[in-house]
Amino acid sequence: MHPLDGATQLERLSADRLAGRTSPLYANLGGPFGGWTAAILMRAVLDDPRRQGAPVALTVNYCAAIADGGFEISCRERRTGKSTQHWSLELTQGERVAATASVVCGARRAVWTHHPATPPVIPPPENLPMFDAGGRSAWVEQYEFRFERGVIAFGGRGSKELQAPDSLLWMRDRPERPLDFVSLAALSDAFFIRAFVVRDQLVPVGTITLTTHFHTDEAGLATQGSHYLLGYATAHTFSGGFADQAAQLWGKNGLLATSTQVVWYRE
Amino acid sequence: MHPLDGATQLERLSADRLAGRTSPLYANLGGPFGGWTAAILMRAVLDDPRRQGAPVALTVNYCAAIADGGFEISCRERRTGKSTQHWSLELTQGERVAATASVVCGARRAVWTHHPATPPVIPPPENLPMFDAGGRSAWVEQYEFRFERGVIAFGGRGSKELQAPDSLLWMRDRPERPLDFVSLAALSDAFFIRAFVVRDQLVPVGTITLTTHFHTDEAGLATQGSHYLLGYATAHTFSGGFADQAAQLWGKNGLLATSTQVVWYRE
Repeated sequence: MHPLDGATQLERLSADRLAGRTSPLYANLGGPFGGWTAAILMRAVLDDPRRQGAPVALTVNYCAAIADGGFEISCRERRTGKSTQHWSLELTQGERVAATASVVCGARRAVWTHHPATPPVIPPPENLPMFDAGGRSAWVEQYEFRFERGVIAFGGRGSKELQAPDSLLWMRDRPERPLDFVSLAALSDAFFIRAFVVRDQLVPVGTITLTTHFHTDEAGLATQGSHYLLGYATAHTFSGGFADQAAQLWGKNGLLATSTQVVWYRE
Repeated sequence: MHPLDGATQLERLSADRLAGRTSPLYANLGGPFGGWTAAILMRAVLDDPRRQGAPVALTVNYCAAIADGGFEISCRERRTGKSTQHWSLELTQGERVAATASVVCGARRAVWTHHPATPPVIPPPENLPMFDAGGRSAWVEQYEFRFERGVIAFGGRGSKELQAPDSLLWMRDRPERPLDFVSLAALSDAFFIRAFVVRDQLVPVGTITLTTHFHTDEAGLATQGSHYLLGYATAHTFSGGFADQAAQLWGKNGLLATSTQVVWYRE
């Protein structure tokens, strides 16, 4: 079993409730990697027998640190229409709400299609070095990252000058794993925090909300398989303790997902 | 009373429930303007005595058409931490869930601030013509739009060729109204649907989810007052019946909000 599948297993308690456990493999400082949280909430909807269509949008609100150990997820179908289906979720530990989320599903159809955006230019993956965090972060070990630009200084401050806010890289699960909506949800949060890139150092931060829009369906995921994704992330503003991030994830046949998030930073 | 304030009045039924009514002033085809829905959900949180901090993020999921008339909003505080506060909302008509939403609030602080993004270049508002929808749309009458590019053909098809997906314009409430988070939430959905711009005609569409991130606080809003906002919107992809939109709203002193949405289109 792939580490991501082992780390996102859920046990069904009732029609609307599931139980799971955190995994040390996807640990971050002070709780799990936010992409893992996105992935397990996505898993809850994907596994639900009431689901119709494929995920189109996911919003995760990170309310509180998730403690190591067990948790429950409530997964409520709120509305199923002709074209879309809406889900509301909460991840709780006892009385504490650690995350809220919404998922929208929809069925893509053979209608007018148009792709005005074009992917950034990047050398092939084999021409870029594999990122090595030196074992400092569990979740980072679960990914291959090959940066063209916007890499972070994991082991200390690299530069005293502010850097550009964008990163361009190849990324995929390690070991390789055929792409699905669980891994795509996780990958949409797998860009390093923009404040780390701009300030070229690690500073106290936490993602507080993540929204990912999916632009493909199961057929598109099957075409992608376990090929590298081309990732691009940037930030517009770091303002009074809250920063944004906007990201694109491109596959071999086009745009797979776009994602935005807000990150709290302390200083 | 400004039309937006009249159209977003809420009556408190209990600590967690409010009642309101749709307004013909912000009507769209087949239900209210989605920006009005965003605004009234934002109003519910802003008016709540439990609120701490200013809005940082809003996600609205448009589950079903809202019928003209009354509705109720449930507004639940899910988690209040040291830095952020998380809210979950639902707008219902009887048993039908018409919209779900989440709002994250936070208090900005005097910490490191950095603004890597720069606003698009546009001529001053007085040099651009006022958009005139010819009375065809109620909600459009509630706004001043002055387009530099990416205007839509409201009265029929203008071109047989696909157009660029982006729009650049000045925008504000009509009549003028000092900016607050209610109006900023509405303005974040006041860009015309990207499919209308690209195809240069009106086609059957509906916004299914909207996420807006706010990059200012009450002091920043007071500085903005009733000045025009500079709006920019674009789309990356129109894929099998679902398109995206990414937008920026700039004020006289910087970026006020960024917003993304997914739009369903029929053909």
